[in-house]
Amino acid sequence: MDFLTTKLTLDTIRQELVRLEDSIIFALIERAQFARNANIYSANYFESMGFTGTFLQYFLHEIESVHARVRRYTSPDEYPFTKNLPDPVLPPLQFPQLLAPNAINVNDQLMSIYLTNIVPLICTDADDSNYGSAATKDVDALQCLSRRIHFGKFVAEAKFNGPEHDRYVALIKAQDRDGLMELLTNVDVEKRLLARLRRKALVYGQEIEEQDKEVSEAHLRIPLDVVSNMYERYVIPLTKEVEVEYLLARLQHVDKA
Amino acid sequence: MDFLTTKLTLDTIRQELVRLEDSIIFALIERAQFARNANIYSANYFESMGFTGTFLQYFLHEIESVHARVRRYTSPDEYPFTKNLPDPVLPPLQFPQLLAPNAINVNDQLMSIYLTNIVPLICTDADDSNYGSAATKDVDALQCLSRRIHFGKFVAEAKFNGPEHDRYVALIKAQDRDGLMELLTNVDVEKRLLARLRRKALVYGQEIEEQDKEVSEAHLRIPLDVVSNMYERYVIPLTKEVEVEYLLARLQHVDKA
Repeated sequence: MDFLTTKLTLDTIRQELVRLEDSIIFALIERAQFARNANIYSANYFESMGFTGTFLQYFLHEIESVHARVRRYTSPDEYPFTKNLPDPVLPPLQFPQLLAPNAINVNDQLMSIYLTNIVPLICTDADDSNYGSAATKDVDALQCLSRRIHFGKFVAEAKFNGPEHDRYVALIKAQDRDGLMELLTNVDVEKRLLARLRRKALVYGQEIEEQDKEVSEAHLRIPLDVVSNMYERYVIPLTKEVEVEYLLARLQHVDKA
Repeated sequence: MDFLTTKLTLDTIRQELVRLEDSIIFALIERAQFARNANIYSANYFESMGFTGTFLQYFLHEIESVHARVRRYTSPDEYPFTKNLPDPVLPPLQFPQLLAPNAINVNDQLMSIYLTNIVPLICTDADDSNYGSAATKDVDALQCLSRRIHFGKFVAEAKFNGPEHDRYVALIKAQDRDGLMELLTNVDVEKRLLARLRRKALVYGQEIEEQDKEVSEAHLRIPLDVVSNMYERYVIPLTKEVEVEYLLARLQHVDKA
């Protein structure tokens, strides 16, 4: 990412997070045009054709393999869902060392939340046989959500280097998980975020005809509250979990970052 | 596509085309967040690393190979940009025979238009080193646009079977290209389409903050007229070219469709 070449401030990170909200909403709207197609998430269905795992796992691994070859996962803001990915075919890019070394990857949790608590809310519970199309949109949505959540690492690093540095150091030394969670939580920011998401879901989710008309819930392609509820219940908590995990190990690498 | 399992009417086709407009606009907005990155379209750049062709061609072929394996291109509304794609790993779906057999594929023209007349209008003329991200969004946009344009085949088939059937047959027998173009053109429909696109670009393209505010061009992520101009100058003409080509050969297959 371009912003990774600039100095990491909460303001540049925030701009990127706000922009990512749009990508996430677009991806969910795109997914919602297809039925749920439960077969693509069922190991039984796909294994009957001689594969291991689900159709989505197979498809995700194939796409991540293509992306790995063009060095997607060498970028500090990109984390794969699948393992055994090939090496890049492109020469490595030099990224500035913005983060302390870490192996935090919460994509397994994200996948479980996505399949259980998001797809059923935006898709009709039916099978329209568009397995490839649905899986393509799943991959888009999962990749955006993963990027959003792992941005917690940048948020945490910026907060660690900010005005509360000494308080963070003390809490990390005490390995005080709850204290860290409290210090990094900004209720006002979260409230504004949720309000903005409702507004975005209303505007971007509407079906548009030629004539001007009032924006109403009647013409939305995903339920109005799905996005803000998803952020409140899952995206924000998982992001903060990434932040806390990152911070708990942050002092092991004082000299490196 | 689900709608392909239902009877083909101009109304069901229109709904799908209107929905596709949103996907195309979303894809262009997503592409616009990255710089143009001219290197990904330059054969010289990528061939210096030992590859043949451009980075986009390489990436597109890799992605289309994954999609071919999950049988994307067995669907009568999907057409690949690259050649030498692998066979599907999934058993074939049975599609109803909605179209007369044909080999029309205008993706080479679309690619040239996209790179010359669309990308430069929505991206800053710079290099932000996000080659993989930019190419991913290029693929999304190209696939949506290709699907939209090749839908001309369904439009043509529906018109051929509609109230003007006899006039189409006469023009086809005379191989009257201009006459066909005139008969299938509906100026009113095109005007409404362009008006709707301007409205969509205005609504979907806006940056949204917490507070209500007037929609204005100042906060759009792609220039307001890019989408409607693109449709007027390229998408509609190419779609109609597909329609005419399809119709010119339509009587060779009277019994098959």
